Amino acid sequence: MTATTSRSTRRRFAGTLGLLGAGGIGAALAPDGVRIERAPAADAAPDHGHAPGAAVDRQQTTTEPNADEMDALHEAGVMSFPAPTAGLGGQPLAFELDGDVKVFRLTCQVVQWEVTPGKWVEAWTYNGVTPGPEIRVTEGDKVRIHVFNELPQSTAVHWHGLVVPNNQDGVPFLTQPPVKPGGAWTYEFQIRDGNAGTHMYHSHHNAAFQVTKGMLGAFIVEPKDPASRPAFDREYTIVLNDGPLGAYSLNGKGFPATRPFAAKRGEKVLFRYMNEGLMIHPMHLHGMPMLVTAQDGYLLPQPYMCDTLNIAPGQRFEVIVEATEPGVWAFHCHILNHAESEHGMFGMVTALIVEE
Amino acid sequence: MTATTSRSTRRRFAGTLGLLGAGGIGAALAPDGVRIERAPAADAAPDHGHAPGAAVDRQQTTTEPNADEMDALHEAGVMSFPAPTAGLGGQPLAFELDGDVKVFRLTCQVVQWEVTPGKWVEAWTYNGVTPGPEIRVTEGDKVRIHVFNELPQSTAVHWHGLVVPNNQDGVPFLTQPPVKPGGAWTYEFQIRDGNAGTHMYHSHHNAAFQVTKGMLGAFIVEPKDPASRPAFDREYTIVLNDGPLGAYSLNGKGFPATRPFAAKRGEKVLFRYMNEGLMIHPMHLHGMPMLVTAQDGYLLPQPYMCDTLNIAPGQRFEVIVEATEPGVWAFHCHILNHAESEHGMFGMVTALIVEE
Amino acid sequence: MTATTSRSTRRRFAGTLGLLGAGGIGAALAPDGVRIERAPAADAAPDHGHAPGAAVDRQQTTTEPNADEMDALHEAGVMSFPAPTAGLGGQPLAFELDGDVKVFRLTCQVVQWEVTPGKWVEAWTYNGVTPGPEIRVTEGDKVRIHVFNELPQSTAVHWHGLVVPNNQDGVPFLTQPPVKPGGAWTYEFQIRDGNAGTHMYHSHHNAAFQVTKGMLGAFIVEPKDPASRPAFDREYTIVLNDGPLGAYSLNGKGFPATRPFAAKRGEKVLFRYMNEGLMIHPMHLHGMPMLVTAQDGYLLPQPYMCDTLNIAPGQRFEVIVEATEPGVWAFHCHILNHAESEHGMFGMVTALIVEE
Repeated sequence: MTATTSRSTRRRFAGTLGLLGAGGIGAALAPDGVRIERAPAADAAPDHGHAPGAAVDRQQTTTEPNADEMDALHEAGVMSFPAPTAGLGGQPLAFELDGDVKVFRLTCQVVQWEVTPGKWVEAWTYNGVTPGPEIRVTEGDKVRIHVFNELPQSTAVHWHGLVVPNNQDGVPFLTQPPVKPGGAWTYEFQIRDGNAGTHMYHSHHNAAFQVTKGMLGAFIVEPKDPASRPAFDREYTIVLNDGPLGAYSLNGKGFPATRPFAAKRGEKVLFRYMNEGLMIHPMHLHGMPMLVTAQDGYLLPQPYMCDTLNIAPGQRFEVIVEATEPGVWAFHCHILNHAESEHGMFGMVTALIVEE
Repeated sequence: MTATTSRSTRRRFAGTLGLLGAGGIGAALAPDGVRIERAPAADAAPDHGHAPGAAVDRQQTTTEPNADEMDALHEAGVMSFPAPTAGLGGQPLAFELDGDVKVFRLTCQVVQWEVTPGKWVEAWTYNGVTPGPEIRVTEGDKVRIHVFNELPQSTAVHWHGLVVPNNQDGVPFLTQPPVKPGGAWTYEFQIRDGNAGTHMYHSHHNAAFQVTKGMLGAFIVEPKDPASRPAFDREYTIVLNDGPLGAYSLNGKGFPATRPFAAKRGEKVLFRYMNEGLMIHPMHLHGMPMLVTAQDGYLLPQPYMCDTLNIAPGQRFEVIVEATEPGVWAFHCHILNHAESEHGMFGMVTALIVEE
Repeated sequence: MTATTSRSTRRRFAGTLGLLGAGGIGAALAPDGVRIERAPAADAAPDHGHAPGAAVDRQQTTTEPNADEMDALHEAGVMSFPAPTAGLGGQPLAFELDGDVKVFRLTCQVVQWEVTPGKWVEAWTYNGVTPGPEIRVTEGDKVRIHVFNELPQSTAVHWHGLVVPNNQDGVPFLTQPPVKPGGAWTYEFQIRDGNAGTHMYHSHHNAAFQVTKGMLGAFIVEPKDPASRPAFDREYTIVLNDGPLGAYSLNGKGFPATRPFAAKRGEKVLFRYMNEGLMIHPMHLHGMPMLVTAQDGYLLPQPYMCDTLNIAPGQRFEVIVEATEPGVWAFHCHILNHAESEHGMFGMVTALIVEE
């Protein structure tokens, strides 16, 4: 049997959980010290202990050099995961208090972004990272957000999912003038009660370009009463993008530069999905099902179970995974050409690591 | 702050609601008198009253001429919205009574169709318009529909969502012969109890071509007992299409020729979505969430809330929006390249106007 | 009226149900003796008995030769349905018992596959067919599966939807080494209670290629207690694929080589959908709605009705259709260019035949 392989695989990720920050917000793994050891070679003589002779009469086709080359490319990808790259998006955005108003600052900037190891692409960002920093507030909070435009194009910010006054909605010429290059704009609104959940902010000007280039971020609204939403022990946000950033990405990175998610066995893990791309992405978690608890921030009256959740552009879903199964579990978009080629896994692939 | 902008924006649409017909069925706006005034220019000196000095130390990048040109194109689009075009589909189809049978007539015709201002495309239509006229009946009604084929191809009509006898189902060679050019065909059936809701009629012959070219329409079945379905004050139908009609359209028109929807503050607005195209379209309404109450005409046992509803080809959804937030709210497909380019918004974009 | 047509259509399929096997598992029709008779020609003089004179004043456009040629192609397709082809996937996979362990064998093979009549394509398969043979077990069963690789590439098998130990999950370099050409691998696990439902097995190595080329199959888990799931009289599995197998297919065949599904009037028919392709497919059944009862194997807390079910790659749905309406009902993907061209219906099209 393959139990040895399994133990070995789990050893590769030993200590991963210890690297998790206390907050459990966003992709909190510090991947630099975490590398996958080489897997044991495939058995030349396959294990047929349970079915003696079963394979003996099979014709052994010649191993094509092609296959070994392909395997080497696949292996190299997995072995380098999680591969270090410069830049990490989605980290909490600090705010200042002005009386009872939480004041945030977003600067729109074009930067070079390392989307996979060694592959630098032009990204359009908030504060130099994509996804932009996570804004996290609570129902009832008063929020003010200063936006500074250092782009060569005008822009504006839409608070996707938030119920705000019309003049704060961020649609140029419809609700405000565009924010010119070198200009700035200030948004201010109070988070409504009932508007808790997983939302987004992103450009609403030349948006097919600006958003998919990276001008997007999570806007999480905590409930005033935590008991009003399903309990969880740890949470992660997964921003899907498929734009010219360098093709398919999770939280701004393509495999093997994506960061794995980690949990202790028995924990309930909240994943917050949001699709900022131009295509659907059915996300498939191996090993454990997902309980879908909220759509676009709104609690579902009847949560339902699934293992593959189809997420369309603009949608957000909250799911709870009970981390009952130890191991390193593949976690990827099930449109398979968003996740794997003959050269190995790429793009929208990561892992959930459940530590015993 | 931007309150001035907001008031100005609302003024642009003043009187819109007054133009609404009494029935509230279909896109009832008469757009000709409704134009958007020019928005105020973006503040050269951004508002930083709330965070003194915040922007002062920002490097002011030079405004690229490119940005101004882009903005001018974006502005021109929004300013012309809703732009008048010839032809309006989806209006109620009159019927004659033959005893207790409601008799409708549909003529299949190729016409030139103004899909956006000045852009005329060949459309294949029912009665010269796309979407074809709306057929609206009630559970239990006896219906007869004469179809006359003036196309250069054969055709047949499928009543998508209606439970009809097999020989009335409209699939050439499977349930009937094709209706030849110059020929005609008569369909007759009784609407079943339990078949209320949002349905469609469309070609089922060479349908990838004929339907996306425009041979489609809404078939609405009212319940015998209005109390059996969620209450609403006003309703609109939104037919999605992405065919060779001229790319992405809502009710047969691309932005800025799409028609805005209007409601008075506090009203419950029923939107009936139907996708007659070849792609999914996740429709995103700004400002207010949607309560999804029915799928393919069937009431959901548990309505759920969302702000972005993914609609696949052939699907219909009914949603209720509580028009609580005054203003002009963007309303568009969230596959952003179905809605905006560097030249401005286009295609699947419209607005919901909530009047105080 | 067209009642004659309808009776004729039903006669074409007379005896179809008699050909159904007792088990009702998979596509159990033996199509060879079932051919559609030629439909009656379209009435040259359309039936206007109900609306005298209605069509008389219509201009009769000249019938274009083009239309007749198109109709002939459409007719030929329907008349040949279900067209015989070599090879039938999805049939039950036999097992041997080793103590209380059910032992299955899968051999990965490249074969020539007749996807539509006369069109042979290279398929990558399990046991020479696509879909691979159906594996069907019961909650609590102990399962051992020997996989033999006769491909020119390495491979591995993922049990999509099953909760298995991490080292049995089938992801090369993450949970096991790849199974080299000429090699073999043995998987062994116990089916968890609560894991009943419609699942899949497929390659998880170079999967965008290997799966869409045909390396996929149904893995059905029966509940220990049949009363724990909705009752049905007959069941069919529908595997969607859109890969290089020869474009769009249902259970490995494109129309007219797809097999119709049959039921007796009044029966409850369970359809198990699974999408193994790279695109969404909204499946539309004419004539009768579907009650969606399970997603990814998990029972929905609130089943809902629809007539067009959007299925994304990796997803499975179980639906119950009450076969209340006699006739031959079209059943197809509603992305219309997956189902019909100017040359007639093709790809993801089949029929549900309800016998009186």
